[in-house]
Amino acid sequence: MQISLETLRNIVGAAHVITGDDVNSRQEDWMTGALCHAGAIVRPADTDQLAAVMRACFELKQPIVTHGGLTGLVHGAETSPDELVISLERMTAIEEIDRVGGTLTVQAGTPLQRVQEAASEAGLQFPLDLGARGSCTIGGNIATNAGGVRVIRYGMMRQQVLGLEAVMADGRVVSSMNRMLKNNAGFDLKQLFIGSEGTLGIVTRAVLRLQPPMPIEQTALVACPSFDALTELLGHMGKTLGGSLGAFEVMWQNHYRLLTETTGRHTPPIPTDHPFYVIIEGLGSDEARLEAQFSEALEQALERELIVDAVIAQSATQRAGLWAIREDIEGLVKGLAPVLTFDVSLPIIDMQRYTDTLEAQLLQRWPDGRLVVFGHLGDGNLHISISVGSHDPDVRRAVEALVYEPLQALGGSVSAEHGIGLEKRAWLSTCRTSAEIELMQTLKQALDPHCLLNRGKVLA
Amino acid sequence: MQISLETLRNIVGAAHVITGDDVNSRQEDWMTGALCHAGAIVRPADTDQLAAVMRACFELKQPIVTHGGLTGLVHGAETSPDELVISLERMTAIEEIDRVGGTLTVQAGTPLQRVQEAASEAGLQFPLDLGARGSCTIGGNIATNAGGVRVIRYGMMRQQVLGLEAVMADGRVVSSMNRMLKNNAGFDLKQLFIGSEGTLGIVTRAVLRLQPPMPIEQTALVACPSFDALTELLGHMGKTLGGSLGAFEVMWQNHYRLLTETTGRHTPPIPTDHPFYVIIEGLGSDEARLEAQFSEALEQALERELIVDAVIAQSATQRAGLWAIREDIEGLVKGLAPVLTFDVSLPIIDMQRYTDTLEAQLLQRWPDGRLVVFGHLGDGNLHISISVGSHDPDVRRAVEALVYEPLQALGGSVSAEHGIGLEKRAWLSTCRTSAEIELMQTLKQALDPHCLLNRGKVLA
Repeated sequence: MQISLETLRNIVGAAHVITGDDVNSRQEDWMTGALCHAGAIVRPADTDQLAAVMRACFELKQPIVTHGGLTGLVHGAETSPDELVISLERMTAIEEIDRVGGTLTVQAGTPLQRVQEAASEAGLQFPLDLGARGSCTIGGNIATNAGGVRVIRYGMMRQQVLGLEAVMADGRVVSSMNRMLKNNAGFDLKQLFIGSEGTLGIVTRAVLRLQPPMPIEQTALVACPSFDALTELLGHMGKTLGGSLGAFEVMWQNHYRLLTETTGRHTPPIPTDHPFYVIIEGLGSDEARLEAQFSEALEQALERELIVDAVIAQSATQRAGLWAIREDIEGLVKGLAPVLTFDVSLPIIDMQRYTDTLEAQLLQRWPDGRLVVFGHLGDGNLHISISVGSHDPDVRRAVEALVYEPLQALGGSVSAEHGIGLEKRAWLSTCRTSAEIELMQTLKQALDPHCLLNRGKVLA
Repeated sequence: MQISLETLRNIVGAAHVITGDDVNSRQEDWMTGALCHAGAIVRPADTDQLAAVMRACFELKQPIVTHGGLTGLVHGAETSPDELVISLERMTAIEEIDRVGGTLTVQAGTPLQRVQEAASEAGLQFPLDLGARGSCTIGGNIATNAGGVRVIRYGMMRQQVLGLEAVMADGRVVSSMNRMLKNNAGFDLKQLFIGSEGTLGIVTRAVLRLQPPMPIEQTALVACPSFDALTELLGHMGKTLGGSLGAFEVMWQNHYRLLTETTGRHTPPIPTDHPFYVIIEGLGSDEARLEAQFSEALEQALERELIVDAVIAQSATQRAGLWAIREDIEGLVKGLAPVLTFDVSLPIIDMQRYTDTLEAQLLQRWPDGRLVVFGHLGDGNLHISISVGSHDPDVRRAVEALVYEPLQALGGSVSAEHGIGLEKRAWLSTCRTSAEIELMQTLKQALDPHCLLNRGKVLA
């Protein structure tokens, strides 16, 4: 490392500079279980300390990696011995809730779930939701522009952020803590930091937008007879439920069947011989009204043969049972081990042809290969899990080529919601033009001229 | 001008290079009626021609101003004789509508209303809406991050843009025509161009997000007994209507009274002696259901004394009559002539104190002064109209100080939805920190090193 431990200790206090085994025994990647290789971990108490650390790093050209909840999926938090980790684990205060304006001001190290709970206690909701809610942090959600199961209704993390504060590579603090829905006074600087995976600055605080609560949920699992019916169903539910459509999560037959019949992990609520299954969720505040609206919309879909079977959850337990199939990542991983997972987006109309072609090509090369597909159909986002009996780098690369290369012609993306990190860096150029990548590099150069922030992630 | 007409004619053809009186007789500002002072106007047919123009301009250091629908309110389209206008008036094609994915691909010179109509014909809706819909262009909506009356439900223009194409200062074309709701492959470059008022690039095409149609509207005008009741009403309607709340537009008594009683332009649907009035709109697809939900929500508000009077429109004519009061800008301008208008945002909880203080200070200095307030309460956005008998620059500046200076302590903004342009440039530093403005300048320098794009607008 370029920076001395002494310098760091002078800024944050000796107790908050972690070294040696205390660093190397920390996991930095929950998928691979990889341990932290950084030279040290520094834990600033607040923005001022963090800025002082960054000023010192800038002067000494010390590269840094920011750590939040470490629940990322693309090795964006990976470190090497010459890097310093800045962990935001001490910056976890919820600073303010404005019930009238519907805003929550929070430090970046706060876990998502704590924000959801605080919003709920204030009689509002913070709608971003994803499986890692207990561990992932608001700063990480911002840095990766997190998605999840409510995007179709509320948008991604980008839409939930009204303002933020960031520390730049040279230690300057840019405080853009806007609290209003509308602010067109100059460039909207927060957009630079949202989704740039810690490569343009370190997010330290944020003002989040809260939403009116939608405490009533109606949940159904339905079966669709064809892909055309599936897309028509999406349009039908969007139109009839309007702002009450909270989720539209699709499972291809191969996914539904794996987690019910094949592995025996879940009793199938409806038979497993349909091509597509959807979990549809309605959100509202009036139980009787939502129930009537929801069941009427499903009846119409049955009449129009957009769905051929359906079960509506009659209790919280039944509701949890339906979601458990969709969210059983452990079952998926075990059922397909060794599994390779992908997160892509593409225009909805191209999805069936894309997955059919992918499966055919996969089976051609690996006759025992298996493909499992589920995802956020309305968002154009599919999660693809593939098993070909190995996850050696060479095999992974060959499978990646099958999954990613066809996206180029379709205008799709190699990352819908997980980001690029290290894992997808080599594939970035298949879904972004050279002019786009040049412009990204121009931004990187302008904001982080010594390339100290999350070095080598996203951009080479 | 640095660039020759010959060079321009070679690129776009002689018919599309406009000079002399044909330039100087064009209005470039509908508020002031100011005429165009530019050296010439060039009208490229497509992105390639525009890029060729920009390459030539870059080489010769020729400054340019991009013209769209010219409906801006902050002199962002103003020109001088050494500047070249690039007008997008020939780039008006709607290139594609994807009904399944809910996207519309359009050239930037297309008027907003044509996009709304095309979306509607496809059985969907494009929700951005504002008074200038017939003239303003999609490119201008993007460049200014336009707002309007549906922001509380659908967000600003930024939320409607999935992808875009822009020509940079040096003529490079950055095509980022993403069509998916989710794409986290690298930095989200489109955010740079949205809301930067033509200072970082020229938007040439865009992919817009369409929404399910909400053909049924319920509209009410209600009276609130106090500001506290008003903010509670906002929370109540957000909670009970949820995703069906389409608009929540507030008029202070001084606004409602001016346009009804004082000027006699509209018959007041409810008496004029209440402190606040709100137009509330519910949006849905099922008439009976929305009607029941809407009237129930209003009844609850009456019971809780959040409102003390209400009228629900029983026909399209009645509905238009309610909106006519709110949208009667002509009446406002005539009733207060000479009028000074402002577009600010601030936290909702601070609004009453802010407007009360402003009115008191105004009357102290101009005993005959008048203040009229209306706006998008849920968005934190107020439109303030002030009459003090003069709009001389000195007077305007003194009134600006009264309106803008208090926003600094409140974390408010001198521009909620109109942008900065030239008009508010001197006030930018009262609502953005020096670190923010420095970062804006860093971006400007990185993307437009010769400062050729909309020179002097937004940033000095």
